[in-house]
Amino acid sequence: MKKIGILGGGQLGRMLLQAAINYPVETYVMENDSNCPAAHLCNHFVEGDITNYQAVYDFGKQLDAITIEIEHVNEDALAQLEAEGVQVFPSAAALKIIKNKIAQKEFYQLHGIPSSEFIVTQTIADLQQHLSFLPAVHKLNAGGYDGRGVQVIKSASDIEKGFNAPAVLEKLVDIKKEIAIIVAVNSKNETAIYPAVEMIVNKDLNQLDYQLCPADIAEKTLWTAEAIALKVVKELKSPGIFAVELFVDTNNVVWVNETAPRVHNSGHHTIEGNFSSQFDMLWRVMLDYPLGSTEILFPSALINIVGEANYTGPAKFEGLEDILKIENAFVHLYGKSTTKPGRKMGHVTIISKEKQELIHQAQRVRHGLKVVS
Amino acid sequence: MKKIGILGGGQLGRMLLQAAINYPVETYVMENDSNCPAAHLCNHFVEGDITNYQAVYDFGKQLDAITIEIEHVNEDALAQLEAEGVQVFPSAAALKIIKNKIAQKEFYQLHGIPSSEFIVTQTIADLQQHLSFLPAVHKLNAGGYDGRGVQVIKSASDIEKGFNAPAVLEKLVDIKKEIAIIVAVNSKNETAIYPAVEMIVNKDLNQLDYQLCPADIAEKTLWTAEAIALKVVKELKSPGIFAVELFVDTNNVVWVNETAPRVHNSGHHTIEGNFSSQFDMLWRVMLDYPLGSTEILFPSALINIVGEANYTGPAKFEGLEDILKIENAFVHLYGKSTTKPGRKMGHVTIISKEKQELIHQAQRVRHGLKVVS
Repeated sequence: MKKIGILGGGQLGRMLLQAAINYPVETYVMENDSNCPAAHLCNHFVEGDITNYQAVYDFGKQLDAITIEIEHVNEDALAQLEAEGVQVFPSAAALKIIKNKIAQKEFYQLHGIPSSEFIVTQTIADLQQHLSFLPAVHKLNAGGYDGRGVQVIKSASDIEKGFNAPAVLEKLVDIKKEIAIIVAVNSKNETAIYPAVEMIVNKDLNQLDYQLCPADIAEKTLWTAEAIALKVVKELKSPGIFAVELFVDTNNVVWVNETAPRVHNSGHHTIEGNFSSQFDMLWRVMLDYPLGSTEILFPSALINIVGEANYTGPAKFEGLEDILKIENAFVHLYGKSTTKPGRKMGHVTIISKEKQELIHQAQRVRHGLKVVS
Repeated sequence: MKKIGILGGGQLGRMLLQAAINYPVETYVMENDSNCPAAHLCNHFVEGDITNYQAVYDFGKQLDAITIEIEHVNEDALAQLEAEGVQVFPSAAALKIIKNKIAQKEFYQLHGIPSSEFIVTQTIADLQQHLSFLPAVHKLNAGGYDGRGVQVIKSASDIEKGFNAPAVLEKLVDIKKEIAIIVAVNSKNETAIYPAVEMIVNKDLNQLDYQLCPADIAEKTLWTAEAIALKVVKELKSPGIFAVELFVDTNNVVWVNETAPRVHNSGHHTIEGNFSSQFDMLWRVMLDYPLGSTEILFPSALINIVGEANYTGPAKFEGLEDILKIENAFVHLYGKSTTKPGRKMGHVTIISKEKQELIHQAQRVRHGLKVVS
C-alpha cells in the first residue's frame, strides 16, 4: 500500500481521510494538536509543527507522497522531499507561488491571466502614495487565512486598517458574481474540471450566505471562466487539486481573485453533488488512478456552519434536530469540541433539482442552525 | 460527545466509522486484530475478544452506547451492560433470538411470520429420520457466517454434508426471487424502511452475481414483503438497524429467510443510492437524532469484490484501473491486505436511471475486477 501523508489535520484533512477509506492506502497526518479533527482517522498521526523544516522533512521522508490541507507549511522541506523522490501535491514550486500573495499576483501578470491591477506595498506609509488607486483591497503577502490578512481600503480614512508588512494592494473589482472552479491535474498532466460554483454573499454583513452549484452565469462567461481556470492550472505546472476563485464584474469581465492549491471549502458540495468528490479526486491523483467524473448528480447548495459571534467554549449545535429532519440536507460536523466566533464548525449540503428548493432549504439551515456554547 | 463503541472491526465497522465522521461522536472499536479494516478509524481501538464476557463488559462499561457489526459477540455481557444503563443496538434479547438459528426460526413461528417449515436436529443421524422432508437446507444453530454453516441437503446422498451439532433443517423454498429489506428502528420505536433490494444469483455457481435496487417485483408482493419485514422488527422489540432477507417463491408467496440485526451487505448501495445510508441511519438511531430519509436518489447495482479462488496472500486488484474509469461506478475497497478465496475485499456500486446500464456495468465489474495475489 502506498504511504501518503497530509500536512494539517483540520476539516479538510478529515474529509480527505473519509474519502481515503474507499481505497487501499496507508495514511499519515501531521498537526500540532492531537485532538484535531483528522487525528484519529489516519493510520499514523504525528504531532508536529507543519511550518518547521525538520519536522516536515522527517514526516515526509517515510512517505511515497504528501499533500497539504493548508498553505502555511514549510515549502522548503517539500522541495527537498520532492528532490529526493517523494511525490508532492501540489509541487513545492506551485505552493511557493500561491502561498505569497505578491508572487501569486506576479504569476497571473506574467502569464497574462486576468487578475485585478495591483501594487506591492511594504508598509502602511506606502498606501499613502497610492490614494488615487483606491478603492482597493489590501492583502498581507504571507500568513493570511480564512479572511484574516485582508482589508478593504475604500478611501484615505481606511488606510490605518492596512498592513505594515509586505502586502499587495489590489484594485477593487465591481463584482457582479463570485464564482469558484475546482480543477484536478494528475501526474500525466490530464485535467478534470468541476462545474462552477456561485457564492451568494450577504452584502450587508460581507459574509458568505451560501453557495450554489452550478453557478447561474451566461454560457459565454462560464466558458471564459473555465478557460482561465485551466490556464492558471496549466501555468502552475503541478499535479494536485486547485480551487480557482474568480470574479465576474458588472461588465461580465472575468478576473481571477486567488487560487488555492488544495481541496477547498467551495468544493464540499461535491461529496453528494458529483460522481467523484474533490476529496475522492485528490486520492485518485495521488494513487495514480484514472481521474474521476466531475459530472453533477444533483444541483446543490452549501452552507457553512460557523461559530456564532460572542460564543467561545464547548460547542453546542442549536437547531440541529430540525436540520436533520430535512430530507435532502446532508450534515457534516467537523468534530471540533470548542467553538469560536466565525470558526468553521461544519457544513450542510442541500441537493435538489429545483433552485427555489435549494435556496429555501439553504436559508432554513443558515438561520436555523447556530453554534453556541 | 457521546461515546459509542462497535464490537468488530471489519468492513461494516469501517463503513460505519466513515459515516460517523459527519457527526460529533467519540468512537470505540474492539477487535482481536489491530490491523483490521476499522482499527485506525476510531478514536479508541481496543484489542480484545468480542466473544469474551469480561472483555466485552469492560469495553462497554465506559460507553454511552454500543453496537455490533457481527452477531458472534458475547450477548450476556451486552445484557449486563444494558441492565447497567448502556444503550445496546440491537438489544441483547433481540441479538439472542437472531444469533441462534433455532431460536430465530421459533421466533418466526411464534409470531406467525411466514418462514419455511423446519425441524430441529442435534446430530447427522437425526437427518436420517427426515428423508421425506427433503429437499431442505441444513443450518448450523450457532457460528455460521457468510455462507459457512449452511448446506443444501437435496436427497439422502447429501446427508453426510450435514452438521453433527444443533441445527435447523429448513424446507427448501422454490425461489423465484431473493430480496432484502433494511429497516431502522429508533428508541422511540419509529421505523424507517428502505426500498427492497433484489439479489441476482448465478444458479450454476450458486453465487451472488450482483444486487439491484429497487427490486423488480410486483407491487402487491412488495407490500407483503414490507409488511413482513416491519412485523419482524416490531416483534424483535429493539432499536437498531435490521436486514430482513426474504424469498419470493414461484407462487409469489413471501417467506422470511433470515434477519441480521445490524448493518448488512445488502445495504451497501445506500451510501450512494439513498439520502441516508444504512450507516448514517444507525448513527442517527444511536445519537438520538431524527431518522433519515430512505428515499432512492438513483437506482443502483451492487457487486461484491471477493477473493478469487486459488489465491491466498497479499491482495492485488486486477482490472481496478478499468473499473475506476467507469463514470457511474463507486469503488469501495476494505483495506484488507491479505486475500483468501471468497473473502469480501470490497464492493462496487453502480448508479443509473437505466436498468440495462446497471446490469451492463455490474457485469463489467463482476468479470473485470479480480482479487489475486
